[in-house]
Amino acid sequence: MECKAINISEKLSLFSDHWSPKVIARMNDYHLKLVKFQGDFVWHAHKETDEVFLVLEGEMTIHFRDKDVAVKKGELFVIPKGTEHKTSAKVECHAMLIEPEGTVNTGEIQDAKTAPVDSWL
Amino acid sequence: MECKAINISEKLSLFSDHWSPKVIARMNDYHLKLVKFQGDFVWHAHKETDEVFLVLEGEMTIHFRDKDVAVKKGELFVIPKGTEHKTSAKVECHAMLIEPEGTVNTGEIQDAKTAPVDSWL
Repeated sequence: MECKAINISEKLSLFSDHWSPKVIARMNDYHLKLVKFQGDFVWHAHKETDEVFLVLEGEMTIHFRDKDVAVKKGELFVIPKGTEHKTSAKVECHAMLIEPEGTVNTGEIQDAKTAPVDSWL
Repeated sequence: MECKAINISEKLSLFSDHWSPKVIARMNDYHLKLVKFQGDFVWHAHKETDEVFLVLEGEMTIHFRDKDVAVKKGELFVIPKGTEHKTSAKVECHAMLIEPEGTVNTGEIQDAKTAPVDSWL
């Protein structure tokens, strides 16, 4: 067992690339990940799982086919399993993701933004 | 699907009782909960699951039989499945918990601090 708590700000200081989630902790078969992003992501869905975004810095929009949801610092949103969505941020946004280990950021889409699923900080 | 993000500060303003986690979101079969506490909890373990504490305000200590871990605002800690632990806080602490729905706060211990598992805000 670790002897020290995981400091989120310290972990955020260790990377700067966008759209590439980094695992900071594992609970059961779930990963807690940090991600930084700006601009527009690709439309995709996660067939097998819900996905949590908790905004740590800045603000993001989660676009659905029928609506947009703004998620600001200190807010979270659960994207339901199987629901097509696209994330975007006008200025750089930092967020924590909670999702099962092995969840691919672009779902079943292969894209230039598709990132490794198991990149630990 | 909800149309609005969940604001953690707003949710925290809705309750003041201690040691009684409130569910604010569900992802798959997991609950995200908020809890406020001060003083000492009871020794217990969760046989079936890891448990995440993310400190939102203040500071807590997670006591294990062989060590103590301090968790400050902006830090998180994963308590491994089956590991006996006790939480405490010298001043009031606010934290987010991530754990499977149905997880009892005192594990298999029945205590005055045993709280309902499905109390939503």
